[in-house]
Amino acid sequence: MRSAAVVGTGLIGTSIALALRGRGVTTYLIDVNPEAARTAADLGAGIAGTPRGPVDLAVIAVPPRHVAAALKEHQLQGLAHDFTDAASIKELPQREADQAGCDLTRFVGGHPMGGREQSGPLAARDDLFHGRPWVLTPSVHTRAQTVERAQRLAELCRARPVVMAHAEHDRAVALTSHVPHLVSSLLAGQLLHGDPSQLGLAGQGLQDITRLAAGSADLWTDILGSNAVAVADVLAGFAQDLHQVVDALQGLGTAHEPEQRRVHTDRLTTALVRGIQGRARIPARAPATTLSTAYAAAPRGV
Amino acid sequence: MRSAAVVGTGLIGTSIALALRGRGVTTYLIDVNPEAARTAADLGAGIAGTPRGPVDLAVIAVPPRHVAAALKEHQLQGLAHDFTDAASIKELPQREADQAGCDLTRFVGGHPMGGREQSGPLAARDDLFHGRPWVLTPSVHTRAQTVERAQRLAELCRARPVVMAHAEHDRAVALTSHVPHLVSSLLAGQLLHGDPSQLGLAGQGLQDITRLAAGSADLWTDILGSNAVAVADVLAGFAQDLHQVVDALQGLGTAHEPEQRRVHTDRLTTALVRGIQGRARIPARAPATTLSTAYAAAPRGV
Repeated sequence: MRSAAVVGTGLIGTSIALALRGRGVTTYLIDVNPEAARTAADLGAGIAGTPRGPVDLAVIAVPPRHVAAALKEHQLQGLAHDFTDAASIKELPQREADQAGCDLTRFVGGHPMGGREQSGPLAARDDLFHGRPWVLTPSVHTRAQTVERAQRLAELCRARPVVMAHAEHDRAVALTSHVPHLVSSLLAGQLLHGDPSQLGLAGQGLQDITRLAAGSADLWTDILGSNAVAVADVLAGFAQDLHQVVDALQGLGTAHEPEQRRVHTDRLTTALVRGIQGRARIPARAPATTLSTAYAAAPRGV
Repeated sequence: MRSAAVVGTGLIGTSIALALRGRGVTTYLIDVNPEAARTAADLGAGIAGTPRGPVDLAVIAVPPRHVAAALKEHQLQGLAHDFTDAASIKELPQREADQAGCDLTRFVGGHPMGGREQSGPLAARDDLFHGRPWVLTPSVHTRAQTVERAQRLAELCRARPVVMAHAEHDRAVALTSHVPHLVSSLLAGQLLHGDPSQLGLAGQGLQDITRLAAGSADLWTDILGSNAVAVADVLAGFAQDLHQVVDALQGLGTAHEPEQRRVHTDRLTTALVRGIQGRARIPARAPATTLSTAYAAAPRGV
């Protein structure tokens, strides 16, 4: 891959561009806000503006609800031979791109799994995706070369390309990212009920568990709203377990019989043990199912 | 303070003993499991065993439900002139100590606000409480010298003594520690429903938000069960906000009218904005209400 364009020079787009520039790819920077594109260019992320002829690959790095329109626009303008995106949900943008009449043969959904709480080009880092999964969601329409170019993009950013179905990806991120974000926000929201002397007792644990809550409310409204069904499903299971625990605690507040107390106590312990077991399932490193080997065997010049 | 005893040489007790030894206080180490006391002694935390005469201050560093019995036993044996504890709840142990007939004039509840996920003497650190609040909960019975000695203990551990009422402390830790722990556990428990390819997408955010869930299920059952009413109260508010959000997400999954969608979307945004506002209330540093100044003015030899 010799040339690329990044549409949307926020945190993710600029981080991708910085990584591509570092690997010698000629990279163009486009943003609805030209100032943002210039800021990214000033950071060494590439050339602000549109290329004269089509680049090899364009990355649509805009919020989920704007992906289809941006893809449509830049396909019509002939920005690139192939297109991918970087949105953190995959089913809705794919459907909207279809409805908008985009050329789906030359588009593959992509989701580089890196991020920070800060947003905007100034928060970008060329190593944001190092060692991270980069999910690709080819549709039945996507041609092979488009997938290969998106894999190459991931590898140039030193990420690990992973192929998944759209819905499978969306369920996975509901569980591992969207619900955790929302739970962090709801927990942090409870702190509005505390007075300063109470909050003075906060420790590192509270800092860590509310870290996600600091993310942009606009962007996360878009993400959560665009993956509403999958997020609601996971959250409903969480709410059910929560009710069990509230019930047990309220029982302990009133029960005096040892046998009754034991029943409630056991339910608390069960919830805590399930937490220990669930946490132990988070892989310390990424899973083995990547496309790195497949890509290494692919022809040059992709 | 020249001499002290620590009853219960787990993480907290051994960390206190290490800090006291580092400040030149002769420290005795007592545990129902003599092996644990010897391990702490081998780490340089003091002398395993009971002193010949009473020490200045004994710290009962055992799980909440054992505080009253251990206090009673060691008061009867004349282990120390004054006593404090280190349990993370304060109302129930105080009530149980009263019911057990402990000498409440020479006891002040204490809660050093430091900790780690690991437990046991080998996880202990002499700087575990540096700069952290150390809550003291004197009762109407507590004599002044007992409070002063407990303040001195906190300061020898380089913590910041803070006086609070028992119930006030328990509500504060329900909000800042107990509910966050339980929420972390419940969230981590949902990961039992995910398959490995889903969990492979986990990032640092999920690691951080489930970190608390790794804590000991036995100890946390005790803590949560001993503070059941305050924890249930905070958790009920959390559950209510959660329901609003599940409702909004389910609405977004079915609503097609823009006006309807906007109502649901606004509810999501509100929850996220409240999270940002709540997180902003966590003090970067500890509050000003400490007893350090008061202690500095206290007579020597306390």
